[in-house]
Amino acid sequence: MVELKGDERLDYLLAENLRIIQSPTVFSFSLDAVLLARFAYLPIQRGNIIDLCTGNGVVPLLVSKRTKGTITGVEIQERLYDMAVRSIEYNHLENQINMIHGDIKDLPGAIGYGKFDALTCNPPYFLTPENSIINENEHFAIARHEILCTLEDVIRVSSQLLHQGGKAAFVHRPGRLMDILSLMRQYRLEPKRLRFVYPREGKEANTILVEGTKDGSRDLKILPPLFVYTKENEYTDEVKEMLFGTNE
Amino acid sequence: MVELKGDERLDYLLAENLRIIQSPTVFSFSLDAVLLARFAYLPIQRGNIIDLCTGNGVVPLLVSKRTKGTITGVEIQERLYDMAVRSIEYNHLENQINMIHGDIKDLPGAIGYGKFDALTCNPPYFLTPENSIINENEHFAIARHEILCTLEDVIRVSSQLLHQGGKAAFVHRPGRLMDILSLMRQYRLEPKRLRFVYPREGKEANTILVEGTKDGSRDLKILPPLFVYTKENEYTDEVKEMLFGTNE
Repeated sequence: MVELKGDERLDYLLAENLRIIQSPTVFSFSLDAVLLARFAYLPIQRGNIIDLCTGNGVVPLLVSKRTKGTITGVEIQERLYDMAVRSIEYNHLENQINMIHGDIKDLPGAIGYGKFDALTCNPPYFLTPENSIINENEHFAIARHEILCTLEDVIRVSSQLLHQGGKAAFVHRPGRLMDILSLMRQYRLEPKRLRFVYPREGKEANTILVEGTKDGSRDLKILPPLFVYTKENEYTDEVKEMLFGTNE
Repeated sequence: MVELKGDERLDYLLAENLRIIQSPTVFSFSLDAVLLARFAYLPIQRGNIIDLCTGNGVVPLLVSKRTKGTITGVEIQERLYDMAVRSIEYNHLENQINMIHGDIKDLPGAIGYGKFDALTCNPPYFLTPENSIINENEHFAIARHEILCTLEDVIRVSSQLLHQGGKAAFVHRPGRLMDILSLMRQYRLEPKRLRFVYPREGKEANTILVEGTKDGSRDLKILPPLFVYTKENEYTDEVKEMLFGTNE
Protein backbone atom coordinates (compact mmCIF):
# COMPACT_ATOMS: atom_id res chain seq x y z
CA MET A 1 0.00 0.00 0.00
CA VAL A 2 1.02 3.56 -0.59
CA GLU A 3 -0.54 6.89 0.18
CA LEU A 4 -1.26 8.91 -2.97
CA LYS A 5 -1.69 12.67 -2.48
CA GLY A 6 -3.75 14.99 -4.68
CA ASP A 7 -3.56 14.04 -8.35
CA GLU A 8 -0.72 11.56 -7.90
CA ARG A 9 -0.70 8.29 -9.83
CA LEU A 10 1.17 5.07 -9.25
CA ASP A 11 2.79 4.60 -12.67
CA TYR A 12 4.73 1.64 -13.97
CA LEU A 13 8.42 1.41 -14.76
CA LEU A 14 7.69 -1.55 -16.97
CA ALA A 15 11.18 -2.62 -17.95
CA GLU A 16 12.22 -2.87 -14.32
CA ASN A 17 8.96 -4.17 -12.87
CA LEU A 18 8.76 -1.21 -10.50
CA ARG A 19 6.13 1.39 -9.77
CA ILE A 20 6.62 5.10 -9.21
CA ILE A 21 4.49 7.91 -7.86
CA GLN A 22 3.97 10.69 -10.38
CA SER A 23 1.76 13.72 -10.74
CA PRO A 24 0.82 15.47 -13.95
CA THR A 25 0.95 18.87 -12.21
CA VAL A 26 4.03 18.31 -10.04
CA PHE A 27 6.45 15.95 -11.70
CA SER A 28 6.52 13.10 -14.19
CA PHE A 29 9.75 11.51 -15.30
CA SER A 30 10.95 11.98 -18.85
CA LEU A 31 12.66 9.72 -21.36
CA ASP A 32 15.87 11.62 -20.49
CA ALA A 33 15.90 9.97 -17.06
CA VAL A 34 15.48 6.51 -18.57
CA LEU A 35 18.28 7.16 -21.06
CA LEU A 36 20.56 8.45 -18.32
CA ALA A 37 19.92 5.45 -16.03
CA ARG A 38 20.94 3.11 -18.87
CA PHE A 39 23.85 5.19 -20.17
CA ALA A 40 25.68 5.67 -16.88
CA TYR A 41 28.56 3.53 -15.78
CA LEU A 42 27.64 1.65 -12.58
CA PRO A 43 29.63 -0.63 -10.32
CA ILE A 44 27.70 -3.92 -10.30
CA GLN A 45 28.52 -5.80 -7.09
CA ARG A 46 29.16 -2.98 -4.63
CA GLY A 47 29.85 0.73 -4.48
CA ASN A 48 28.31 4.07 -3.68
CA ILE A 49 26.19 5.74 -6.30
CA ILE A 50 24.52 9.13 -6.07
CA ASP A 51 21.86 10.82 -8.20
CA LEU A 52 21.61 14.61 -7.97
CA CYS A 53 18.42 16.55 -8.73
CA THR A 54 16.62 13.25 -8.46
CA GLY A 55 13.04 14.55 -8.70
CA ASN A 56 10.59 11.77 -7.86
CA GLY A 57 13.45 9.27 -7.65
CA VAL A 58 13.11 7.72 -11.09
CA VAL A 59 16.85 7.36 -11.73
CA PRO A 60 17.65 5.72 -8.37
CA LEU A 61 14.73 3.33 -8.89
CA LEU A 62 15.89 2.36 -12.38
CA VAL A 63 19.54 2.19 -11.35
CA SER A 64 18.70 -0.16 -8.44
CA LYS A 65 18.05 -2.91 -10.99
CA ARG A 66 21.54 -2.60 -12.48
CA THR A 67 23.66 -2.63 -9.33
CA LYS A 68 23.87 -4.12 -5.86
CA GLY A 69 25.59 -0.93 -4.65
CA THR A 70 23.93 1.62 -2.42
CA ILE A 71 22.21 4.55 -4.05
CA THR A 72 21.64 8.04 -2.69
CA GLY A 73 19.12 10.41 -4.24
CA VAL A 74 19.16 14.15 -3.54
CA GLU A 75 16.22 16.46 -4.12
CA ILE A 76 15.74 20.06 -3.01
CA GLN A 77 11.95 20.24 -3.44
CA GLU A 78 10.19 18.71 -0.45
CA ARG A 79 7.14 17.68 -2.49
CA LEU A 80 9.27 15.62 -4.89
CA TYR A 81 11.48 14.28 -2.13
CA ASP A 82 8.34 13.02 -0.41
CA MET A 83 7.12 11.30 -3.60
CA ALA A 84 10.51 9.61 -4.01
CA VAL A 85 10.53 8.35 -0.41
CA ARG A 86 7.08 6.82 -0.80
CA SER A 87 7.99 5.19 -4.14
CA ILE A 88 11.11 3.68 -2.60
CA GLU A 89 9.06 2.28 0.27
CA TYR A 90 6.40 0.94 -2.09
CA ASN A 91 9.09 -0.99 -3.99
CA HIS A 92 10.75 -2.19 -0.75
CA LEU A 93 14.05 -0.59 -1.70
CA GLU A 94 14.67 1.34 1.55
CA ASN A 95 17.76 -0.77 2.23
CA GLN A 96 19.36 0.12 -1.10
CA ILE A 97 18.17 3.66 -1.81
CA ASN A 98 18.63 6.52 0.63
CA MET A 99 16.96 9.88 -0.06
CA ILE A 100 18.38 13.23 1.08
CA HIS A 101 16.22 16.35 1.14
CA GLY A 102 18.54 19.27 0.51
CA ASP A 103 20.52 21.55 -1.74
CA ILE A 104 23.26 19.80 -3.72
CA LYS A 105 25.56 22.77 -3.09
CA ASP A 106 25.63 21.85 0.62
CA LEU A 107 26.25 18.14 0.00
CA PRO A 108 30.04 17.80 0.01
CA GLY A 109 30.25 19.72 3.28
CA ALA A 110 27.44 17.63 4.79
CA ILE A 111 28.33 14.11 3.66
CA GLY A 112 32.00 14.40 2.70
CA TYR A 113 34.26 14.67 -0.33
CA GLY A 114 35.33 11.81 -2.59
CA LYS A 115 32.91 9.24 -1.18
CA PHE A 116 31.19 8.11 -4.39
CA ASP A 117 32.08 5.74 -7.24
CA ALA A 118 29.46 6.86 -9.71
CA LEU A 119 27.11 9.79 -10.08
CA THR A 120 24.17 10.64 -12.29
CA CYS A 121 22.33 13.90 -12.81
CA ASN A 122 19.45 14.94 -15.02
CA PRO A 123 19.32 18.64 -14.21
CA PRO A 124 15.74 19.77 -13.63
CA TYR A 125 14.59 21.93 -16.48
CA PHE A 126 11.24 22.63 -14.88
CA LEU A 127 11.25 23.37 -11.21
CA THR A 128 7.78 24.59 -10.36
CA PRO A 129 4.24 23.25 -10.66
CA GLU A 130 3.60 25.43 -13.74
CA ASN A 131 5.30 22.75 -15.81
CA SER A 132 3.20 23.03 -18.89
CA ILE A 133 3.59 26.78 -19.18
CA ILE A 134 7.34 26.78 -18.65
CA ASN A 135 7.60 23.85 -20.99
CA GLU A 136 6.56 26.16 -23.84
CA ASN A 137 9.55 28.42 -23.36
CA GLU A 138 12.92 26.78 -23.03
CA HIS A 139 14.76 30.00 -22.29
CA PHE A 140 12.53 30.71 -19.32
CA ALA A 141 12.89 27.14 -18.17
CA ILE A 142 16.65 27.33 -18.34
CA ALA A 143 16.59 30.58 -16.42
CA ARG A 144 14.53 28.96 -13.67
CA HIS A 145 16.90 26.09 -13.66
CA GLU A 146 19.87 28.38 -13.26
CA ILE A 147 18.29 30.17 -10.30
CA LEU A 148 18.29 27.18 -7.97
CA CYS A 149 21.40 25.48 -9.25
CA THR A 150 23.52 26.25 -12.27
CA LEU A 151 25.13 23.70 -14.55
CA GLU A 152 28.42 24.80 -13.03
CA ASP A 153 27.08 24.04 -9.52
CA VAL A 154 26.08 20.55 -10.68
CA ILE A 155 29.47 19.80 -12.21
CA ARG A 156 31.53 21.31 -9.41
CA VAL A 157 29.58 19.39 -6.75
CA SER A 158 29.75 16.18 -8.82
CA SER A 159 33.51 16.41 -8.96
CA GLN A 160 33.70 17.04 -5.23
CA LEU A 161 31.55 14.01 -4.43
CA LEU A 162 33.50 11.52 -6.59
CA HIS A 163 36.81 9.93 -5.72
CA GLN A 164 39.58 9.80 -8.33
CA GLY A 165 38.50 7.49 -11.14
CA GLY A 166 34.82 7.88 -10.23
CA LYS A 167 32.40 8.51 -13.10
CA ALA A 168 29.75 11.19 -13.57
CA ALA A 169 27.01 10.91 -16.20
CA PHE A 170 24.80 13.80 -17.27
CA VAL A 171 21.96 14.32 -19.69
CA HIS A 172 21.38 17.72 -21.25
CA ARG A 173 20.45 19.63 -24.40
CA PRO A 174 22.82 20.00 -27.39
CA GLY A 175 22.82 23.77 -27.01
CA ARG A 176 24.79 23.30 -23.78
CA LEU A 177 27.30 20.82 -25.21
CA MET A 178 30.20 23.24 -25.23
CA ASP A 179 29.44 24.49 -21.73
CA ILE A 180 29.10 21.02 -20.27
CA LEU A 181 32.31 19.72 -21.88
CA SER A 182 34.38 22.72 -20.84
CA LEU A 183 32.95 22.78 -17.31
CA MET A 184 33.62 19.06 -16.93
CA ARG A 185 37.25 19.51 -17.95
CA GLN A 186 37.54 22.57 -15.71
CA TYR A 187 36.31 20.58 -12.70
CA ARG A 188 38.50 17.52 -13.46
CA LEU A 189 35.67 15.34 -14.80
CA GLU A 190 37.39 14.53 -18.09
CA PRO A 191 34.75 13.68 -20.73
CA LYS A 192 35.18 10.08 -21.90
CA ARG A 193 31.90 8.99 -23.52
CA LEU A 194 29.47 11.13 -25.47
CA ARG A 195 26.24 9.92 -27.04
CA PHE A 196 23.79 11.92 -29.09
CA VAL A 197 20.08 11.17 -29.07
CA TYR A 198 18.08 11.97 -32.19
CA PRO A 199 14.28 11.98 -32.27
CA ARG A 200 14.49 10.02 -35.53
CA GLU A 201 16.75 9.50 -38.56
CA GLY A 202 17.48 12.67 -40.52
CA LYS A 203 16.74 15.00 -37.57
CA GLU A 204 19.07 17.05 -35.41
CA ALA A 205 19.98 15.66 -32.00
CA ASN A 206 17.81 16.93 -29.14
CA THR A 207 19.57 15.29 -26.20
CA ILE A 208 23.14 14.58 -25.20
CA LEU A 209 24.45 11.97 -22.79
CA VAL A 210 27.95 12.54 -21.51
CA GLU A 211 30.11 10.75 -18.97
CA GLY A 212 33.40 11.84 -17.48
CA THR A 213 35.98 10.27 -15.21
CA LYS A 214 37.47 12.24 -12.34
CA ASP A 215 41.10 12.93 -13.22
CA GLY A 216 40.76 10.65 -16.26
CA SER A 217 43.02 10.82 -19.30
CA ARG A 218 42.02 12.72 -22.43
CA ASP A 219 40.26 10.18 -24.62
CA LEU A 220 36.76 11.08 -25.74
CA LYS A 221 34.67 8.48 -27.58
CA ILE A 222 31.55 9.35 -29.58
CA LEU A 223 29.19 6.41 -29.13
CA PRO A 224 26.77 5.23 -31.82
CA PRO A 225 23.78 7.54 -32.22
CA LEU A 226 20.52 6.67 -30.48
CA PHE A 227 17.27 7.17 -32.38
CA VAL A 228 14.06 7.41 -30.35
CA TYR A 229 11.39 6.91 -33.03
CA THR A 230 11.27 4.94 -36.26
CA LYS A 231 10.02 6.41 -39.53
CA GLU A 232 6.66 4.87 -38.62
CA ASN A 233 6.53 6.98 -35.42
CA GLU A 234 7.05 4.01 -33.13
CA TYR A 235 9.77 3.70 -30.53
CA THR A 236 12.90 2.09 -31.93
CA ASP A 237 13.82 -1.37 -30.63
CA GLU A 238 16.56 0.08 -28.43
CA VAL A 239 14.17 2.51 -26.73
CA LYS A 240 11.39 -0.08 -26.45
CA GLU A 241 13.81 -2.33 -24.62
CA MET A 242 14.69 0.47 -22.20
CA LEU A 243 11.08 1.40 -21.52
CA PHE A 244 9.34 -1.95 -21.63
CA GLY A 245 12.11 -4.50 -21.16
CA THR A 246 11.35 -6.05 -24.54
CA ASN A 247 11.51 -4.80 -28.10
CA GLU A 248 8.49 -6.71 -29.30
CA MET B 1 46.84 17.29 -71.65
CA VAL B 2 48.66 17.22 -68.37
CA GLU B 3 52.17 16.30 -67.33
CA LEU B 4 52.23 13.42 -64.85
CA LYS B 5 55.39 13.09 -62.76
CA GLY B 6 56.76 9.87 -61.26
CA ASP B 7 53.99 7.57 -60.04
CA GLU B 8 51.24 10.16 -60.39
CA ARG B 9 47.83 9.15 -61.69
CA LEU B 10 45.00 11.21 -63.14
CA ASP B 11 42.13 10.04 -60.95
CA TYR B 12 38.43 10.82 -61.28
CA LEU B 13 36.27 12.96 -59.01
CA LEU B 14 33.24 11.19 -60.39
CA ALA B 15 30.44 13.12 -58.76
CA GLU B 16 31.80 16.40 -60.08
CA ASN B 17 33.03 15.17 -63.46
CA LEU B 18 36.53 16.39 -62.65
CA ARG B 19 39.94 14.75 -62.69
CA ILE B 20 42.71 15.15 -60.12
CA ILE B 21 46.39 14.29 -60.03
CA GLN B 22 47.25 11.92 -57.20
CA SER B 23 50.20 9.79 -56.19
CA PRO B 24 50.12 6.72 -53.96
CA THR B 25 53.46 7.70 -52.41
CA VAL B 26 52.91 11.47 -52.12
CA PHE B 27 49.25 12.28 -51.61
CA SER B 28 45.82 10.88 -52.34
CA PHE B 29 42.70 12.60 -51.11
CA SER B 30 40.59 10.94 -48.43
CA LEU B 31 36.88 10.66 -47.85
CA ASP B 32 37.35 13.38 -45.21
CA ALA B 33 38.01 15.92 -47.95
CA VAL B 34 34.87 14.92 -49.83
CA LEU B 35 32.79 15.13 -46.66
CA LEU B 36 34.23 18.55 -45.82
CA ALA B 37 33.59 19.94 -49.31
CA ARG B 38 29.92 18.95 -48.98
CA PHE B 39 29.47 19.95 -45.36
CA ALA B 40 30.83 23.48 -45.59
CA TYR B 41 28.65 26.53 -46.00
CA LEU B 42 29.45 28.26 -49.31
CA PRO B 43 28.17 31.46 -50.86
CA ILE B 44 26.63 30.40 -54.18
CA GLN B 45 26.67 33.37 -56.56
CA ARG B 46 29.78 35.26 -55.44
CA GLY B 47 32.23 35.51 -52.60
CA ASN B 48 35.75 34.64 -51.52
CA ILE B 49 36.42 31.14 -50.30
CA ILE B 50 39.70 29.76 -49.00
CA ASP B 51 40.89 26.23 -48.31
CA LEU B 52 43.85 25.85 -45.95
CA CYS B 53 46.21 22.85 -46.04
CA THR B 54 44.75 22.07 -49.42
CA GLY B 55 47.09 19.22 -50.38
CA ASN B 56 46.58 18.30 -54.04
CA GLY B 57 43.66 20.73 -54.27
CA VAL B 58 40.83 18.27 -53.87
CA VAL B 59 38.62 20.54 -51.74
CA PRO B 60 38.91 23.59 -54.05
CA LEU B 61 38.15 21.36 -57.04
CA LEU B 62 35.06 19.87 -55.39
CA VAL B 63 33.94 23.23 -54.00
CA SER B 64 34.18 24.85 -57.46
CA LYS B 65 31.08 22.89 -58.47
CA ARG B 66 29.03 24.33 -55.61
CA THR B 67 29.80 28.04 -55.97
CA LYS B 68 30.53 30.73 -58.53
CA GLY B 69 32.76 32.49 -55.99
CA THR B 70 36.53 32.60 -56.23
CA ILE B 71 38.48 29.94 -54.38
CA THR B 72 41.98 30.16 -52.95
CA GLY B 73 43.92 27.04 -52.00
CA VAL B 74 46.97 27.20 -49.73
CA GLU B 75 49.60 24.45 -49.49
CA ILE B 76 53.00 24.53 -47.82
CA GLN B 77 54.52 21.51 -49.60
CA GLU B 78 55.78 22.47 -53.06
CA ARG B 79 55.24 18.99 -54.47
CA LEU B 80 51.54 19.04 -53.55
CA TYR B 81 51.11 22.67 -54.58
CA ASP B 82 52.49 21.70 -57.99
CA MET B 83 50.04 18.79 -58.31
CA ALA B 84 47.15 21.11 -57.38
CA VAL B 85 48.18 23.73 -59.97
CA ARG B 86 48.33 21.13 -62.73
CA SER B 87 44.96 19.61 -61.76
CA ILE B 88 43.35 23.07 -61.79
CA GLU B 89 44.78 23.72 -65.26
CA TYR B 90 43.66 20.30 -66.53
CA ASN B 91 40.10 21.10 -65.45
CA HIS B 92 40.25 24.65 -66.88
CA LEU B 93 39.51 26.19 -63.51
CA GLU B 94 42.40 28.70 -63.41
CA ASN B 95 39.94 31.59 -63.48
CA GLN B 96 38.08 30.35 -60.40
CA ILE B 97 40.77 28.68 -58.28
CA ASN B 98 43.96 30.42 -57.23
CA MET B 99 46.72 28.43 -55.52
CA ILE B 100 49.16 29.92 -53.00
CA HIS B 101 52.37 28.11 -52.09
CA GLY B 102 53.16 29.07 -48.51
CA ASP B 103 52.73 28.69 -44.78
CA ILE B 104 49.23 29.45 -43.52
CA LYS B 105 50.73 31.26 -40.53
CA ASP B 106 52.04 33.96 -42.90
CA LEU B 107 48.77 34.33 -44.78
CA PRO B 108 46.90 37.10 -42.94
CA GLY B 109 50.00 39.33 -43.09
CA ALA B 110 50.49 38.55 -46.77
CA ILE B 111 46.95 38.76 -48.15
CA GLY B 112 45.09 40.70 -45.46
CA TYR B 113 42.66 40.18 -42.59
CA GLY B 114 38.91 39.67 -42.89
CA LYS B 115 38.85 39.15 -46.65
CA PHE B 116 37.03 35.81 -46.83
CA ASP B 117 33.40 34.73 -46.61
CA ALA B 118 33.98 31.02 -46.10
CA LEU B 119 36.89 28.80 -45.21
CA THR B 120 37.54 25.08 -45.21
CA CYS B 121 40.41 23.10 -43.73
CA ASN B 122 41.18 19.40 -43.56
CA PRO B 123 44.33 19.50 -41.47
CA PRO B 124 46.97 17.21 -43.00
CA TYR B 125 47.47 14.18 -40.81
CA PHE B 126 50.26 12.83 -42.99
CA LEU B 127 52.81 15.31 -44.19
CA THR B 128 55.65 13.28 -45.66
CA PRO B 129 56.04 10.72 -48.47
CA GLU B 130 56.13 7.87 -45.92
CA ASN B 131 52.35 7.98 -45.82
CA SER B 132 51.73 4.30 -45.45
CA ILE B 133 54.10 3.94 -42.51
CA ILE B 134 52.79 6.98 -40.66
CA ASN B 135 49.29 5.91 -41.48
CA GLU B 136 49.82 2.91 -39.18
CA ASN B 137 50.46 5.12 -36.16
CA GLU B 138 48.02 7.91 -35.54
CA HIS B 139 49.98 9.33 -32.63
CA PHE B 140 53.05 9.74 -34.77
CA ALA B 141 50.96 11.23 -37.54
CA ILE B 142 49.41 13.76 -35.18
CA ALA B 143 52.85 14.67 -33.90
CA ARG B 144 54.09 15.28 -37.42
CA HIS B 145 51.02 17.33 -38.09
CA GLU B 146 51.64 19.48 -35.06
CA ILE B 147 55.21 20.22 -36.09
CA LEU B 148 54.33 22.20 -39.20
CA CYS B 149 51.08 23.73 -38.03
CA THR B 150 49.10 23.08 -34.90
CA LEU B 151 45.33 22.93 -34.66
CA GLU B 152 45.55 26.23 -32.81
CA ASP B 153 47.48 27.77 -35.75
CA VAL B 154 44.76 26.59 -38.14
CA ILE B 155 41.95 28.04 -36.06
CA ARG B 156 43.69 31.32 -35.22
CA VAL B 157 44.58 31.95 -38.87
CA SER B 158 41.08 30.94 -39.99
CA SER B 159 39.55 33.52 -37.70
CA GLN B 160 41.96 36.19 -38.94
CA LEU B 161 41.11 35.48 -42.58
CA LEU B 162 37.31 35.62 -42.16
CA HIS B 163 35.22 38.74 -41.83
CA GLN B 164 32.53 38.96 -39.17
CA GLY B 165 29.79 36.46 -40.01
CA GLY B 166 32.16 34.42 -42.19
CA LYS B 167 32.07 30.64 -41.72
CA ALA B 168 34.88 28.16 -41.14
CA ALA B 169 34.42 24.40 -41.59
CA PHE B 170 36.87 21.79 -40.31
CA VAL B 171 37.13 18.02 -40.38
CA HIS B 172 38.97 16.21 -37.61
CA ARG B 173 39.02 13.19 -35.34
CA PRO B 174 36.65 12.77 -32.34
CA GLY B 175 39.59 12.67 -29.94
CA ARG B 176 40.16 16.35 -30.72
CA LEU B 177 36.52 17.41 -30.35
CA MET B 178 37.01 19.24 -27.10
CA ASP B 179 40.15 20.99 -28.31
CA ILE B 180 38.59 22.09 -31.58
CA LEU B 181 35.41 23.40 -29.94
CA SER B 182 37.26 25.31 -27.24
CA LEU B 183 39.83 26.73 -29.67
CA MET B 184 37.06 27.84 -32.01
CA ARG B 185 35.29 29.69 -29.23
CA GLN B 186 38.60 31.15 -28.02
CA TYR B 187 39.31 32.54 -31.51
CA ARG B 188 35.76 33.88 -32.02
CA LEU B 189 34.66 31.14 -34.44
CA GLU B 190 31.55 30.19 -32.48
CA PRO B 191 30.63 26.55 -33.26
CA LYS B 192 27.21 26.39 -34.95
CA ARG B 193 26.94 23.03 -36.74
CA LEU B 194 28.45 19.74 -35.68
CA ARG B 195 28.10 16.45 -37.54
CA PHE B 196 29.49 13.08 -36.55
CA VAL B 197 30.55 10.51 -39.12
CA TYR B 198 30.28 6.84 -38.16
CA PRO B 199 31.86 4.05 -40.23
CA ARG B 200 28.58 2.15 -39.90
CA GLU B 201 25.60 1.72 -37.57
CA GLY B 202 26.51 0.59 -34.07
CA LYS B 203 30.11 1.86 -34.29
CA GLU B 204 31.75 4.84 -32.62
CA ALA B 205 32.25 7.98 -34.70
CA ASN B 206 35.65 8.27 -36.36
CA THR B 207 35.31 11.72 -37.92
CA ILE B 208 33.81 15.06 -36.92
CA LEU B 209 32.68 17.90 -39.13
CA VAL B 210 32.29 21.24 -37.43
CA GLU B 211 31.46 24.73 -38.67
CA GLY B 212 31.68 28.01 -36.81
CA THR B 213 30.66 31.58 -37.54
CA LYS B 214 33.01 34.43 -36.74
CA ASP B 215 31.48 36.35 -33.84
CA GLY B 216 28.33 34.24 -34.16
CA SER B 217 25.83 33.75 -31.36
CA ARG B 218 25.90 30.69 -29.12
CA ASP B 219 23.63 28.17 -30.80
CA LEU B 220 25.16 24.78 -31.59
CA LYS B 221 23.19 22.27 -33.64
CA ILE B 222 24.04 18.56 -33.81
CA LEU B 223 23.18 17.46 -37.35
CA PRO B 224 21.90 13.97 -38.21
CA PRO B 225 24.63 11.31 -38.07
CA LEU B 226 26.36 10.28 -41.28
CA PHE B 227 27.06 6.59 -41.82
CA VAL B 228 29.72 5.66 -44.38
CA TYR B 229 29.03 1.95 -44.93
CA THR B 230 25.91 -0.19 -44.81
CA LYS B 231 25.72 -3.47 -42.94
CA GLU B 232 26.57 -5.11 -46.29
CA ASN B 233 29.87 -3.17 -46.41
CA GLU B 234 28.77 -0.95 -49.26
CA TYR B 235 28.78 2.83 -49.21
CA THR B 236 25.51 4.25 -47.93
CA ASP B 237 23.35 6.13 -50.40
CA GLU B 238 24.41 9.48 -48.95
CA VAL B 239 28.12 8.71 -49.41
CA LYS B 240 27.59 7.17 -52.86
CA GLU B 241 25.93 10.37 -53.94
CA MET B 242 28.87 12.43 -52.67
CA LEU B 243 31.45 10.21 -54.35
CA PHE B 244 29.72 9.19 -57.56
CA GLY B 245 26.96 11.76 -58.02
CA THR B 246 24.33 9.02 -57.89
CA ASN B 247 23.21 6.56 -55.25
CA GLU B 248 22.44 3.74 -57.66
